[in-house]
Amino acid sequence: MTQDNWWLNAATAPSEQVRQQAQAHQDQLTKPQGSLGLLEQVAIELAAMQNRCKPQIHQPHMLIFAGDHGIVAQGVSAYPQSVTVAMLSNFVKGGAAVATLCRQQGIELAVINCGTAHSCEDLANIIHRPIMPGTADFSVQAAMSPAQALQALNLGKEQVERIHLSGCDFLMLGEMGIGNTSAASCLSALLLKRDVDTLTGPGTGLEGSALAHKKAILNTCVQRAQPLTRTPLQALEQVGGLEIAAISGAYIRASQLGIPCLVDGFITTAAALLAVQLNPSVRPWLLFAHHSAEYGHGILLAALKAQPLLNLAMRLGEGSGAAVAFATVQQALAIHNNMATFAEAAVEGKAS
Amino acid sequence: MTQDNWWLNAATAPSEQVRQQAQAHQDQLTKPQGSLGLLEQVAIELAAMQNRCKPQIHQPHMLIFAGDHGIVAQGVSAYPQSVTVAMLSNFVKGGAAVATLCRQQGIELAVINCGTAHSCEDLANIIHRPIMPGTADFSVQAAMSPAQALQALNLGKEQVERIHLSGCDFLMLGEMGIGNTSAASCLSALLLKRDVDTLTGPGTGLEGSALAHKKAILNTCVQRAQPLTRTPLQALEQVGGLEIAAISGAYIRASQLGIPCLVDGFITTAAALLAVQLNPSVRPWLLFAHHSAEYGHGILLAALKAQPLLNLAMRLGEGSGAAVAFATVQQALAIHNNMATFAEAAVEGKAS
Repeated sequence: MTQDNWWLNAATAPSEQVRQQAQAHQDQLTKPQGSLGLLEQVAIELAAMQNRCKPQIHQPHMLIFAGDHGIVAQGVSAYPQSVTVAMLSNFVKGGAAVATLCRQQGIELAVINCGTAHSCEDLANIIHRPIMPGTADFSVQAAMSPAQALQALNLGKEQVERIHLSGCDFLMLGEMGIGNTSAASCLSALLLKRDVDTLTGPGTGLEGSALAHKKAILNTCVQRAQPLTRTPLQALEQVGGLEIAAISGAYIRASQLGIPCLVDGFITTAAALLAVQLNPSVRPWLLFAHHSAEYGHGILLAALKAQPLLNLAMRLGEGSGAAVAFATVQQALAIHNNMATFAEAAVEGKAS
Repeated sequence: MTQDNWWLNAATAPSEQVRQQAQAHQDQLTKPQGSLGLLEQVAIELAAMQNRCKPQIHQPHMLIFAGDHGIVAQGVSAYPQSVTVAMLSNFVKGGAAVATLCRQQGIELAVINCGTAHSCEDLANIIHRPIMPGTADFSVQAAMSPAQALQALNLGKEQVERIHLSGCDFLMLGEMGIGNTSAASCLSALLLKRDVDTLTGPGTGLEGSALAHKKAILNTCVQRAQPLTRTPLQALEQVGGLEIAAISGAYIRASQLGIPCLVDGFITTAAALLAVQLNPSVRPWLLFAHHSAEYGHGILLAALKAQPLLNLAMRLGEGSGAAVAFATVQQALAIHNNMATFAEAAVEGKAS
């Protein structure tokens, strides 16, 4: 395994021994066994990842990767491409949903420009690492070159290494990019070898004939790309996005560094699927925040055997679902670490 | 309408005008309309209840009502009755799940003894208002007298009035009482005129033949009580619980005082159903925290046309599901009140 192919390096598996210890601890807490449902499971999984029976999160981070998509030239989005840059500004100024949720919960937020169509390098408080001015229109050519795809994967790696050095112990990733549900749908269709129709939804709000048009375009894209795609990386090059590639790289690197990740919605789950196909040892490091209302997310969750924490009919992206579910994760830890045991509380256990 | 029948007094309806204003405000925030799903809805409902476009919660309270159930003599619970009192102590000492969650979120917790089988009036930091030493065994007689039922309803009213005076602006109710899923199942069966089997589950953890025995017993109970039940109050007297009655009274009084309520799981939803049958004007004041794993909860939620926020496979009771969902409610308000509008952020809206 060469240094160049860093994404193939296996992540260490979470500790099975600590998982069992954490399960035994849960079963001693003053409640019927299993009665806290998914809250028990998330605490136990985090214990195994952190290799300690009582896991804690001290420095959660949210990285939002942004990039534009040439496919929007085909009329597949309800919003103009200028919105990508406008929202970057809105993230760092604190007005976006995800920014509000991060501020409320003490989640450190950083925004990374992976390549926008409209130039925005004058925007302050954004990490500018543009790879190209948005991807190419993948209805007619590959979205990016192999070198650009690797550059984007490496950008995710670089950003995770940066926050790891500063003490990050829990990672959420978000995305911005008008047109990126189209990229996520086509990428997922190629990775799962499924009909792209089953993975295509309204995105930011297409309806009726506009949605039918999007589906027709995406079918064309997948038909073009399929003969050129033999590996997950080739799928990324053909129909992916810069921010999607960076997010995949970030999940992989976080797993290698032992940082638990909470996956957001449709786009980030497609990136997670790519990460897991590139490197299956990533999977145990991923928790799943919510079941998005975006059509197709359920298929991705099933493919990853993921049980998301929430289902609030959200479909915003940005990392907003992960930021909402982060509160639930913290509650799971508060319960796991602070509840009394039957012995401590002198409560009798289950009869017989 | 007499003063004695205080529970019949109509609650003021939440403001339809403010609901529309709050909806219009949501539609100006920098996100596709509707993309925050249930988070948008809960903020809008709270705006209508608080009669202001930007609702806030400053003083959330959790009241846990506890009572014992004579029906446990028939072997319908996995835990001994002594656990009711032991858990009361665990609530006020902070070791129970709900206590942990309240402490973490600044929710004011109070525990009210409505009548336990084992005497516990020596326990400090509990509000002792025992009505009787647990209900009678309702497989052979009414659980309580009409006077005791009203006393329990009044206890809920009294406690809500107490915290209302201290500034409570958001209410969650919890319960403790070994055997109380049996009471909730029978009460719901009578109120909804449904087969009690469809409303009976494992409670704290019955399985196999023990669960079949519980169902057989509860069928007997409902058959005994049905001919004696013509009104919701009579259903309460026949098969209810002291804590269930107090919780119903608390929901009704909170609605009359304009305090939004977040309903927890199976037991409290049964109490909410009773409250709404006694006084339909209560319904708009109820938000629903989660879909419990306890069998039958879905039927109660459907009967109340309730859309719960979470589904974490929890089945603990105590108010724990409401305490978990409270974080989601606060996130909904943070988003609603603090996000930038399209105009503020200079973001272009949806095309066409």
